[in-house]
Amino acid sequence: MLQKRRIYFDNAATTALDERVLEAMLPFLREHYGNPSSVHAHGREVRAAIEKARKKVAELLNTTPGEVFFTSGGTEADNTAIFSALESFSLEHIITSPLEHHAVLHITDRCVAEKGIGRTLLDTDGQGNLDLDQLKALLQQQPRALVSLMHGNNEIGNINDIEAIGNICQEFGAFFHSDTVQTVGHYVHRLNDLPLNAMVGSAHKFHGPKGSGFLYVNKNKKIKPYILGGSQERNMRGGTENVAGIIGLAKALEIAYEDMEGHRKKIIALKKHFKESLESAIPGVSFNGRSGDLENSLYTVLNVSFPASSNNQGMLLFNLDLEGISASGGSACSSGATLGSHVLRSLQVSPEKESVRFSFSRFNTVEDVDYTIGQLKTLYEVGV
Amino acid sequence: MLQKRRIYFDNAATTALDERVLEAMLPFLREHYGNPSSVHAHGREVRAAIEKARKKVAELLNTTPGEVFFTSGGTEADNTAIFSALESFSLEHIITSPLEHHAVLHITDRCVAEKGIGRTLLDTDGQGNLDLDQLKALLQQQPRALVSLMHGNNEIGNINDIEAIGNICQEFGAFFHSDTVQTVGHYVHRLNDLPLNAMVGSAHKFHGPKGSGFLYVNKNKKIKPYILGGSQERNMRGGTENVAGIIGLAKALEIAYEDMEGHRKKIIALKKHFKESLESAIPGVSFNGRSGDLENSLYTVLNVSFPASSNNQGMLLFNLDLEGISASGGSACSSGATLGSHVLRSLQVSPEKESVRFSFSRFNTVEDVDYTIGQLKTLYEVGV
Ligand SMILES: Cc1ncc(COP(=O)(O)O)c(C=O)c1O
Ligand SMILES: Cc1ncc(COP(=O)(O)O)c(C=O)c1O
Repeated sequence: MLQKRRIYFDNAATTALDERVLEAMLPFLREHYGNPSSVHAHGREVRAAIEKARKKVAELLNTTPGEVFFTSGGTEADNTAIFSALESFSLEHIITSPLEHHAVLHITDRCVAEKGIGRTLLDTDGQGNLDLDQLKALLQQQPRALVSLMHGNNEIGNINDIEAIGNICQEFGAFFHSDTVQTVGHYVHRLNDLPLNAMVGSAHKFHGPKGSGFLYVNKNKKIKPYILGGSQERNMRGGTENVAGIIGLAKALEIAYEDMEGHRKKIIALKKHFKESLESAIPGVSFNGRSGDLENSLYTVLNVSFPASSNNQGMLLFNLDLEGISASGGSACSSGATLGSHVLRSLQVSPEKESVRFSFSRFNTVEDVDYTIGQLKTLYEVGV
Repeated sequence: MLQKRRIYFDNAATTALDERVLEAMLPFLREHYGNPSSVHAHGREVRAAIEKARKKVAELLNTTPGEVFFTSGGTEADNTAIFSALESFSLEHIITSPLEHHAVLHITDRCVAEKGIGRTLLDTDGQGNLDLDQLKALLQQQPRALVSLMHGNNEIGNINDIEAIGNICQEFGAFFHSDTVQTVGHYVHRLNDLPLNAMVGSAHKFHGPKGSGFLYVNKNKKIKPYILGGSQERNMRGGTENVAGIIGLAKALEIAYEDMEGHRKKIIALKKHFKESLESAIPGVSFNGRSGDLENSLYTVLNVSFPASSNNQGMLLFNLDLEGISASGGSACSSGATLGSHVLRSLQVSPEKESVRFSFSRFNTVEDVDYTIGQLKTLYEVGV
């Protein structure tokens, strides 16, 4: 079904499963099929594997196993953190930003509509920078607040200083949740040092399986479950565990940490090469958010604003796809690339310029970049 | 880790994955890794596969693809149906029963506590039978009710007449949700004929993968999502899809339907043989709920009440496990077998009698049964 040469530059949407991760999962799709809640041998061996996975994840994140809860992905984990923290601590106000993922924004919509919670969206500048003084001022007025601000932005690659945000939240006694889906497995998190109450990860963003994520909740900030049923995950998440998914998540995270610096170096070199080649190939390109700033954005994301072109008008992504290149026009996990992006809208990126997000992984090569730049050049030249 | 001979009689807790299901899943754990929300080729091929899976599930259940939503399992699907139907239709009262799974009971607990919804638990007799006249009487008083009554009980095997219940609900305008986790893949559901508004399935109960389920919602009773994020599942369930899990679910259901009658015949013969052998081997055994009634209970479940024995006191499951036999003392997916079961408690099963649930699948054999009966006989005789 795929063409012969097919290049994948949509790694912020999802990544390919690492073959070693699949190897680790297979025994739990074959012989180890017991239900981890069963006390007999079939169940115990699976339970032991889950707890080993939890221990591994906790170790890598510098936290304790009792603070790690497996979920069906980043979205469920975000929903749980936000809905349940509001409920568990009788919080009355949410402070977040228009740049958050829908997994955060839409659950806050519901809390506003159904629970009468107040909400303030922080202002952002044209690059997506937040104003931490505004956060402080708001927290001064809102003693019972939940702050939800992401670590790395999935569309424009901006990185928020979650340590600084956490310190402010701590100062004012606010609950701080961070959507860290785009940084887990790509950046080191020292949870024992970070002033964070909750954060989340999603395996498929770091070469693990889809449908498997986790929620970290600080042990001093215990919250209620969101999905209610059996006593799985120490009563924090009902439902028979996605065992293979959990094993895969832990293995993928382990691989990510084995050589995180090596992966970073490789990928940031690709991003730099992509950016520089693009600037010389297509005059007038610019970069959305901070993604063009190699030092201060996700090394996995480059969000490119292309000059208007009579040849490609609105068809750039489509044309790239025809040439065998998969990239995204916004957040693929959110609404399908063609529907436009609430993040770019809130940055007031000019709508006649077409924006394409290229996002990288350690499976990409310099050849992928060069081929793509060549195709882009042709797509633009034909029109001139 | 497992002993040489290991017999698995805990198929109501979870089942072994069918090798053909794994084969169907593997391409989606390998080359087809795109995000189904992405519009490029990597995404489209995966999206197409998910929609094909949805169509297959819909066909098998005699409904339309637009009424089938994939979830992370039965628990999430039950939570969604109940929480969201209450919300979407401004319902004010829940009618359910003490024999429901915690996936149903605990979400209703929350709706009672947090939303001020009323709840009535139907009375049950010592066998777990419901009184449909009581249901009628309650519905007469409660015009805005949600009724949640399961199809097959996971512990005692009782089958409720969901057609009769649905007709009553329809008569009184109540929303009817049924937890059909134990019957999907084992019994035929003709959703186009059934007066049901919502029902759920969980792949791992019919030789599919863990962490993959579905929610059916009738097209005339559209409800809001529970997990909020991207626009996946036609806005009914945010979060990147567990693609391999969905493909596996559809394949497992397809296999289940290929020869459902053959599987039923094989399994009910095993259950009959188990029951009869047990009755002659251990005088004084009886059966909990209706599970001893071969015609009127799940053919997969036999819940045995063993006579008190000085030799085994409280250790029967443990002793069986030592002999290589995995069975369960209650609902394994609920709280670990040793913690006792809310279902058996509500039937007032005498606590000095030990109850063991044996649950069967098409992978069990007559030899499994005979070996188990032999071991049980020995366990009892040693004590005499
Ligand atoms: C009757 C019933 N409902 C719901 C569930 C929950 O399904 P899942 O394990 O997929 O969350 C189970 C089993 O776990 C069950 O037996
Ligand atoms: C920043 C961010 N948050 C949350 C999510 C949702 O995670 P998941 O796809 O595992 O539900 C994603 C991606 O999908 C994301 O990029």
